[in-house]
Amino acid sequence: MQTFRGIHNMNKHKIFLFALGLGMCKASSPGPLIHATKGAVWPKPQQLNTSDSYFILRPRAFEFNILKNLSSCSFLRNSLARYWKLLQFDVTLKKHQQKNKQGVQVDGSMGYLEYLDVNLTGQCDDQALPGIKMDESYRLWVLPDRKELQAASIWGILRGLESFSQLVYMTHDGQSLRVNATMIKDFPRYKHRGLLIDTSRHFIPLDKIFLTLDAMSYNKMNVLHWHIVDDQSFPYVSTKFPELSDKGAYNHYTKVYFPEDIRDVIEYARLRGIRVLPEFDSPGHTSSWGLSHPEILTPCKIPNMYGPMDPSKEGTFSFLYNLFSDVRDNFKDDFIHLGGDEVNFLCWITNPNITEFMMMQHIKSYEDLESYYVQRVVDMVAQLNFKSIVWEEVFENGVKLSNDTLVHVWKTNWIDTIKRVTASGKHALLSSCWYLDKLKSGGDWQDFYLCEPTDFDGSSAQQELVLGGEACMWGETVNEYNIISRVWPRASTTAEKLWSADLGKYDLIEPAQRLEEHTCRMNRRGIGAQPPNGPGYCD
Amino acid sequence: MQTFRGIHNMNKHKIFLFALGLGMCKASSPGPLIHATKGAVWPKPQQLNTSDSYFILRPRAFEFNILKNLSSCSFLRNSLARYWKLLQFDVTLKKHQQKNKQGVQVDGSMGYLEYLDVNLTGQCDDQALPGIKMDESYRLWVLPDRKELQAASIWGILRGLESFSQLVYMTHDGQSLRVNATMIKDFPRYKHRGLLIDTSRHFIPLDKIFLTLDAMSYNKMNVLHWHIVDDQSFPYVSTKFPELSDKGAYNHYTKVYFPEDIRDVIEYARLRGIRVLPEFDSPGHTSSWGLSHPEILTPCKIPNMYGPMDPSKEGTFSFLYNLFSDVRDNFKDDFIHLGGDEVNFLCWITNPNITEFMMMQHIKSYEDLESYYVQRVVDMVAQLNFKSIVWEEVFENGVKLSNDTLVHVWKTNWIDTIKRVTASGKHALLSSCWYLDKLKSGGDWQDFYLCEPTDFDGSSAQQELVLGGEACMWGETVNEYNIISRVWPRASTTAEKLWSADLGKYDLIEPAQRLEEHTCRMNRRGIGAQPPNGPGYCD
Repeated sequence: MQTFRGIHNMNKHKIFLFALGLGMCKASSPGPLIHATKGAVWPKPQQLNTSDSYFILRPRAFEFNILKNLSSCSFLRNSLARYWKLLQFDVTLKKHQQKNKQGVQVDGSMGYLEYLDVNLTGQCDDQALPGIKMDESYRLWVLPDRKELQAASIWGILRGLESFSQLVYMTHDGQSLRVNATMIKDFPRYKHRGLLIDTSRHFIPLDKIFLTLDAMSYNKMNVLHWHIVDDQSFPYVSTKFPELSDKGAYNHYTKVYFPEDIRDVIEYARLRGIRVLPEFDSPGHTSSWGLSHPEILTPCKIPNMYGPMDPSKEGTFSFLYNLFSDVRDNFKDDFIHLGGDEVNFLCWITNPNITEFMMMQHIKSYEDLESYYVQRVVDMVAQLNFKSIVWEEVFENGVKLSNDTLVHVWKTNWIDTIKRVTASGKHALLSSCWYLDKLKSGGDWQDFYLCEPTDFDGSSAQQELVLGGEACMWGETVNEYNIISRVWPRASTTAEKLWSADLGKYDLIEPAQRLEEHTCRMNRRGIGAQPPNGPGYCD
Repeated sequence: MQTFRGIHNMNKHKIFLFALGLGMCKASSPGPLIHATKGAVWPKPQQLNTSDSYFILRPRAFEFNILKNLSSCSFLRNSLARYWKLLQFDVTLKKHQQKNKQGVQVDGSMGYLEYLDVNLTGQCDDQALPGIKMDESYRLWVLPDRKELQAASIWGILRGLESFSQLVYMTHDGQSLRVNATMIKDFPRYKHRGLLIDTSRHFIPLDKIFLTLDAMSYNKMNVLHWHIVDDQSFPYVSTKFPELSDKGAYNHYTKVYFPEDIRDVIEYARLRGIRVLPEFDSPGHTSSWGLSHPEILTPCKIPNMYGPMDPSKEGTFSFLYNLFSDVRDNFKDDFIHLGGDEVNFLCWITNPNITEFMMMQHIKSYEDLESYYVQRVVDMVAQLNFKSIVWEEVFENGVKLSNDTLVHVWKTNWIDTIKRVTASGKHALLSSCWYLDKLKSGGDWQDFYLCEPTDFDGSSAQQELVLGGEACMWGETVNEYNIISRVWPRASTTAEKLWSADLGKYDLIEPAQRLEEHTCRMNRRGIGAQPPNGPGYCD
């Protein structure tokens, strides 16, 4: 049944994948379609030298050695403890290992890996916050004469620990854990490597957000873009305006995020080197705000229907100032995402107050009215010490943006848009290719993987204005039960595109094999990722 | 972001859904896209009369009364216990209710529903096995003067209990459980209402199979089609040939089904009125068999490559007889699925023994050779007291099939195929429209729902030869982590199409509202179903 159908559904990339080395007969051979690597790192490091010689790792006997009098650095110790736990493979294995404790000596073995020196060359700051400028570079040596992870910052240490933990693999016979002799020099290609989650269309409980942060750290992603409110519901509990969630949340007891919850998310993310970027999208996408504050929305011609925010009233802006002050109190990142997408002009067009206001202010088009609104909001949050990120429409409408505002490109014709954004000297983020709610039979990570952010005709200065991108998991079709399996390992593709050097477009087998291992690695660590490549299994 | 893209992705059915009553503005209104019903039954009963008057149900105080001296009927008591548990909504509610125990008297209330008489008019057989001929009809009265579930068989009682449990709903304020005054007369439209799971492409652990059976019972599905082995792996532990799974399973300790496991699955299914139909697909789809028994497969021209079963050797058939005897010992259903699909003739064509055998036997084509093979296997399993189900290719190749063999139609051009199958007097099962591995952005249950099995030009005698159908969840893209959310509530659509009267093609709002409630009902009962309809939440 399936083989036949499967081949029919294949896109050209997959056909290429098959043709290249696996052969059409592979689909009906026993075993997995794609054989997993052993101890390969995802996302691929910038430089990695490895050999067939290996160390044996006995997880219980292994130690991280903290160098340079940093033993009181709590952030570092916390990180090491987390990764030490991840090295503890299952009990069966440990029994086997105890049996083999003495006398392991086989070809290629360089003995036991008993420790890794952890060398944080910079300062320890237990309260350090991740930011757009953080240094995530690291070096790693797992060699007979040098076993060391070195980084200038805790962020590099975190990324290096992740890579180190991924080098560890179980032998096929399940008898031992190995680490091949390896040298890595690594740093991210892009500074902003994000995942958008949407907690308005469906509420996502905290445990699934924590799990998402775990998975992000396993993929070296560093920004959780929290699209926290939208038309459908307002789960954010504002201290200043509690009525927003009292009336706007799906349930004001069970489907809300209290300041305490947000603090926990931010701290959990911080310890994993992940920024938490809140989005309060306006002037559109705000229907749920109107359940408690109809006065800030524009009344439509139809009674009891409301459109976008009402920019003709000063009260709208004072409300927003108070709300964003509240947001400033709760979120720690330098940036806030202000949205600005998909504004429906219909209610503005039919509302006489808006018409009068535009005449008074000499505003000639609804695009200009939107610009007026967004301009004021961008300036307002700047007073609150937030830099802004906006969806591409804001740029298209000609809002004057300072050069530290990021333009988030999401529509399909991104190549043209990102070219114009960067030509104007603005920084850009890309999401167009990485919409995780686009589904396709038979899997689709290859499509995500073949998207290359530099594929636009722009100068090197323009290319440098691209700060990264985000995979977007909009909430219409995901709830707490399928968000994890729908996002992972598909978002891993985005993670690799944004971390690793451009690896060339047409080699899809090498990443397929690593992604097979990486998915099993995530499964083993409690992330219920779906299969990336067709038939297969995890050891 | 999402609204815009979502509308672009909508298919015509969805556009219809929007246009019909919800309006384009709905997508940006606060709250869920589709409002859930309260106490509506899925699949829709054949006849249901209801009123706005309601009873209050206090779950702890509610009793099932077994009539007619059947209190020693263990099967019945077991079923009642399971449904009594399902009536126990969450603790918060119970507290509210205790507070309200006295003095509930509001408009429309007809007082407390304190019991339901359970009237099994036929025999109690604690060992009864569900079968193709089982009687699943029931009648239900929840009226002031009659509170009774009546059925001639335990199967009807099970279906009626499911409907009764679905009538119970929580009020919007969460203060009480209600059951509207209702009369139901119900029976299934089709006798075979199945779900195919594939445990060869990915191993599915037992707990997820049990959960699948729970969900099937909540949808009144009655056949688990267990596609247990295939090319990729052989998780079935055969007592006669343990080497099949020792060598053919992904892992012969952790990724196998022992006879004891199969017995548990069958018993769990039996108690829910669900048949377990094993599929051992041959002569193609058997690569994993060859890992331990290469002698039964046809050697291809390329060394160490094997094609379909080798029908030129008698040893192949004696092996199969022993294997199917073993299968007979483990599976209790009257039917076995023999597969017979997608046979690749290449190895047969290039193998000289096959050529010689065909000459000797005057077999003129490879289709005829396949027919020769399948014919012998169908006859063989008949000796073992199995009736056969085969994929449509077997019919297309002209194999002489007895009229109790079912032809399983799966290819896209099903209208033509099912017409020819039934014109030849054969019974048919339909799956073409219900391939759950076909994915589409934005959801797709409407496509499944619009498939109507009678949509072919055939006599009423031909229509009666359609025994039902199955939703198919092939295993290439699902593992234990996403199988539940990928199948549910999408397979619920198939369940309703096969149970309920043909409701007309174009009303998609009424089922959308019930499916919204039904999905939340499944979620509440522990089935991690994904959202059916876009933004929303469960109480």
